[in-house]
Amino acid sequence: MQSELMPNFLKKRAFLTPDRVAIYFNDESITFKELYNRSFEIAGKLQGLGFRQGDFTGVLLRNHLDTVIILFALQLIGIRAVILNNRLTPTELSWQLNDSKARFLLLEPSFSNVIDSMDSSLKCITKDQLFKATMVHPMIQEEVDLLDICTVMYTSGTTGNPKGVIQTYGNHWWSSVGSAFNLGLMEQDCWLCTVPIFHISGFSILMRSVIYGMTIVLHESFDVERTLQDIEEKKVTIMSVVSTMLTRMVDRLGEQRLPEYFRCMLLGGGPAPLPLLEACVEKAIPVFQTYGMTETASQIVTLSPEYSLAKLGSAGKPLFPAQIKVELEEGVLAPEGKAGEIIVKGPNVTTGYLYRPDATANKVKNGWLYTGDIGYLDSEGFLFVLDRRADLIISGGENIYPAEIEAVLLAHPSVADAGVIGIEDEAWGQVPVSFIVKNIGMNPSQEEIQQFCMEKLAKYKVPKQIFFLESLPRNAAKKLLRRELRELVNEGRVER
Amino acid sequence: MQSELMPNFLKKRAFLTPDRVAIYFNDESITFKELYNRSFEIAGKLQGLGFRQGDFTGVLLRNHLDTVIILFALQLIGIRAVILNNRLTPTELSWQLNDSKARFLLLEPSFSNVIDSMDSSLKCITKDQLFKATMVHPMIQEEVDLLDICTVMYTSGTTGNPKGVIQTYGNHWWSSVGSAFNLGLMEQDCWLCTVPIFHISGFSILMRSVIYGMTIVLHESFDVERTLQDIEEKKVTIMSVVSTMLTRMVDRLGEQRLPEYFRCMLLGGGPAPLPLLEACVEKAIPVFQTYGMTETASQIVTLSPEYSLAKLGSAGKPLFPAQIKVELEEGVLAPEGKAGEIIVKGPNVTTGYLYRPDATANKVKNGWLYTGDIGYLDSEGFLFVLDRRADLIISGGENIYPAEIEAVLLAHPSVADAGVIGIEDEAWGQVPVSFIVKNIGMNPSQEEIQQFCMEKLAKYKVPKQIFFLESLPRNAAKKLLRRELRELVNEGRVER
Repeated sequence: MQSELMPNFLKKRAFLTPDRVAIYFNDESITFKELYNRSFEIAGKLQGLGFRQGDFTGVLLRNHLDTVIILFALQLIGIRAVILNNRLTPTELSWQLNDSKARFLLLEPSFSNVIDSMDSSLKCITKDQLFKATMVHPMIQEEVDLLDICTVMYTSGTTGNPKGVIQTYGNHWWSSVGSAFNLGLMEQDCWLCTVPIFHISGFSILMRSVIYGMTIVLHESFDVERTLQDIEEKKVTIMSVVSTMLTRMVDRLGEQRLPEYFRCMLLGGGPAPLPLLEACVEKAIPVFQTYGMTETASQIVTLSPEYSLAKLGSAGKPLFPAQIKVELEEGVLAPEGKAGEIIVKGPNVTTGYLYRPDATANKVKNGWLYTGDIGYLDSEGFLFVLDRRADLIISGGENIYPAEIEAVLLAHPSVADAGVIGIEDEAWGQVPVSFIVKNIGMNPSQEEIQQFCMEKLAKYKVPKQIFFLESLPRNAAKKLLRRELRELVNEGRVER
Repeated sequence: MQSELMPNFLKKRAFLTPDRVAIYFNDESITFKELYNRSFEIAGKLQGLGFRQGDFTGVLLRNHLDTVIILFALQLIGIRAVILNNRLTPTELSWQLNDSKARFLLLEPSFSNVIDSMDSSLKCITKDQLFKATMVHPMIQEEVDLLDICTVMYTSGTTGNPKGVIQTYGNHWWSSVGSAFNLGLMEQDCWLCTVPIFHISGFSILMRSVIYGMTIVLHESFDVERTLQDIEEKKVTIMSVVSTMLTRMVDRLGEQRLPEYFRCMLLGGGPAPLPLLEACVEKAIPVFQTYGMTETASQIVTLSPEYSLAKLGSAGKPLFPAQIKVELEEGVLAPEGKAGEIIVKGPNVTTGYLYRPDATANKVKNGWLYTGDIGYLDSEGFLFVLDRRADLIISGGENIYPAEIEAVLLAHPSVADAGVIGIEDEAWGQVPVSFIVKNIGMNPSQEEIQQFCMEKLAKYKVPKQIFFLESLPRNAAKKLLRRELRELVNEGRVER
């Protein structure tokens, strides 16, 4: 078995720059040394509670300083974190915990209502219980193997159940390296994290903090006032955003300007609307558009601001260690300017899906990840992403997969057939809506169906509108023709 | 066979930032795109001349823009460069070329006098011949394997012949990463290279340039006036120096100060004298002391300026990906403050010596390189290097191994026994001197012996003084007691 050993990231960081501030959270700030000491203590409590190296544990925690400490405590003792989206329903959580063979679930006390839905073999430990537990002297992993699993995050695909994306220590490390070689790295850098740390966009900021020795400011959630205030007060130089957040910042700024030291607005989570980019140019906001996904441990393609108008709408070029291609079909490269499937390669790309050799073989071939996203390369090699996987809906930075919602709808006794698409929405970019064919003799209301979904799906996945049809448009192979559903909406040919 | 593929460094760099200046050399400057195009052309000429992927070639070239182009041309087509010290004698060069099984020697026309001394099977090609050769369309290595050999540089050890240190693409890559995570990386960075690119100190600057997309200023050799002038004119931010260079800069600066944007004076090549460090603090020169060697692909331990007085004389802490320990004997760690052998580990550390599995096994154990250098770690983990391998002489940044000179002296018909040590020298830090026992009835002069050495050794290795003794101090095992030789000199008990 090959291995690539490196010093334990947090331990090494605390050794190199013990007194530098690691995190600002509300009125608190802690140095890297304090972060290590507190993670070390929690590591001792975890081992006292029976956590063993190589275990998988669910992590259902909010953006909070304690969460950072717990996540690094897990890394100190080689526990793999299955990081759970806080917005999921108990049914969804339970499914992911079972699938990942997690032995434990670490969770906020305020989420403890989910415990009842969990398998009885799963040991649920609230944050309070953890912090009050007895500490043993922990056995620290002095070295981490870059090939070892650090975290797992679930994503749904076009078909079937969500899959656990494996993120190794190496994936996170190389993602940090690629980002630094692109954005540069300065001692005064300070990265504001208002995106969820249960997403790779947020979690990757934590990893960069420890790998670079960089201060971060952590917010519980995005608040435009606090964001602008902390950019000033904490001298923030970099921030990760999705379009909806950036729109609100631009609106709130009005005639104001961001301070000069603010050097990078890293914009991910789907294509950005043109008027927003133009407004940012006008306000001299240095927007770096990016393309990335859970499978690439954050950004893999980035556009620097110098190109933000000349290459408007482009996601840029692949980071130094990474490569991209566009294929018309497997093994056939698309010519310049011609759209095809985007495939990516690099040491930041996932080694595969947890316990899913078939799904892995299907998506990762010869080191290349088939993203399912559609795009093209221009004559200078800039990537233009036309469509995230044909049917993916991105709502306020959250990925929503129609297939998952359709499966829930079909489980309703009144539903004979169901289809879901995303439609434009001013506040969220997109929201899901559904089309339903009723069973004969049944007549469910929109509210009844939404209520049914609410019990099984995170709120942001619940269709905002239900349209009733006689039949759904399907091709000969019975594949749902989502484009036709979209036309129905655009042409106003459906009603609630 | 495992592999770790990355995009070809120069090709990727030219793709990412084509128009950024790569190198200033004399009155010329070329962008990364031009550097790629010119290296591509030379790659085509090399393949036309019969160079094949995996070949070893000697490279005997000065600090020059052409040399950079040739070195990267070799990387484009997977040729391994045995980089030769320009100061070596034909005998020394021939030995290294044979040992490395080089098929070719690329050399300056001005060095062509060495060709006669070469094995007839070696194909010698001057730079002029290369540039005039016919170009074929080259087969570029689109990807490089981090585990593959990029360069070989010879070092001598305490015993026997020089050994070829393998430096993989990964060694250079990780060295660049470790350095960037320590020093930071800014778009306006510009690194001045006045040290030889046939040493790792200079060559590593070329690699960083391409990996970071950083401009470098290349000088043919160190000249204090041009150095200070270019720091101003080219807005140099970082420079690599050895003590003798820094001393001359400090003297020349007088009351002047370096510009504010100059942010890092990377000081390597042996321990720095205290008065020099104090002078730099007074003049606000940001000195980063470092410890490194050919086997670590440049610095592996670095001290930031904030500690330069508090930890005066320390080489600092190991770079993020690297680790160090001090051992009293194999497997036994030295306690805090106690001196022992420095051992180092990390992805920048050589995989071994070319064709020398025994020497490799002897020096690299379980991933740890036994440096032979003596030092200790203080309570905060700062490394203090007390002595480069007991007998190593560092003269103006060049490593000199007494054993190599002794072997030459012993080959002289009048010499019965010989010992070499380094003595302090104001201009060079150290210079070699030798102690000789004459054969009975023989009476060679100092000049005769120096002349003999001059034919076989690079000039900087020729003993500056020859002391004649009745016998050399040796212990029971006949090991030469260099310390006693040093005492003879210090106490004035020897004469020429």
